[in-house]
Amino acid sequence: MAVLEKSKLAGTVVALLSNPDRKTGLEKARRDRVDITFDGIAGDCHSGRIYKSDSRLLKQYKRGVPIANTRQLSVLSEEQLAEIADSLGIPRLEPEWVGANLVTSGIPDLTFLPPSTRMMFSSGATLIVDGENAPCRYVSDVINKHHPDKGDPFPKVAQHKRGVVAWVEKEGAISVGDEIVLHIPPQRIYSHA
Amino acid sequence: MAVLEKSKLAGTVVALLSNPDRKTGLEKARRDRVDITFDGIAGDCHSGRIYKSDSRLLKQYKRGVPIANTRQLSVLSEEQLAEIADSLGIPRLEPEWVGANLVTSGIPDLTFLPPSTRMMFSSGATLIVDGENAPCRYVSDVINKHHPDKGDPFPKVAQHKRGVVAWVEKEGAISVGDEIVLHIPPQRIYSHA
Repeated sequence: MAVLEKSKLAGTVVALLSNPDRKTGLEKARRDRVDITFDGIAGDCHSGRIYKSDSRLLKQYKRGVPIANTRQLSVLSEEQLAEIADSLGIPRLEPEWVGANLVTSGIPDLTFLPPSTRMMFSSGATLIVDGENAPCRYVSDVINKHHPDKGDPFPKVAQHKRGVVAWVEKEGAISVGDEIVLHIPPQRIYSHA
Repeated sequence: MAVLEKSKLAGTVVALLSNPDRKTGLEKARRDRVDITFDGIAGDCHSGRIYKSDSRLLKQYKRGVPIANTRQLSVLSEEQLAEIADSLGIPRLEPEWVGANLVTSGIPDLTFLPPSTRMMFSSGATLIVDGENAPCRYVSDVINKHHPDKGDPFPKVAQHKRGVVAWVEKEGAISVGDEIVLHIPPQRIYSHA
């Protein structure tokens, strides 16, 4: 593991969502508390040790290659959801509509949290941030169902506001209202790339 | 997964090492090729899905807490090994002495590779960089066995040259002579921490 330092930043869990069945679509159901195993949220369709690579990874792999699942949870902030809603001209962007598992409050620019940051939850679980999530066009269709024609700009206006994907370092639970403490690796620009 | 871009940088694998038994000490044996499973190098004592937290993680966990193993492989560069040897006044620092699993050539400042970088090997496996490895004082004792009294400054002079720890994204093999292609996440400083 990296050399991690506790940050002064702390956030709060304001929503938790899971969905046992991907076939019902992106929308997940609210939970007050979820059990976290090494595979992700127990009973969520995105949990699992292994993930088959998809269109998001075509620069790295052909479709369907078994890889470690680093996108067990989709984490967004209520602040960035509100910014996207503002840009779309709708009163509110529900986390259900974007396939969120966890919504935070109080962590500024959540999407830019450094990769390998540990998010430590007061109910006991820890997540590792893999990195920024990319906007997906399916969300536009979901928004359009609720606000006709308002969803189309989503991929563009949600750029850098779509949160992060994360996976489990430590088993435990996560509850709505939990404090989130962040342990962040050293920050520096790798100038050779 | 994050939004990863292929870097123009590429390196080469110059050594592979594994050791089935931690009790024999840090020193590992050279291999021409290793099989990589989702748990790490098949048959290496650092492989495994779960890892018990140790003294390196006391800012995060008490000792002995089961966590995901993100330090399946210890990766160093021959360039940084040579720099450390220079500082210690010895002709060569062997990767066996520092517990390395993999030694690279051609990747500048390997230790500063951004967390979540994917190291893609031409024999098929991919590793995910968790982050910088911290120097450990046991290495001084190993160096002292080979070069009496030369090893003591190791923890200080090896700072930021100790390579990275990494874990497996994609199964396959890694061979000496493999090309290493790097896919690196967007780089930016998170200014709020």
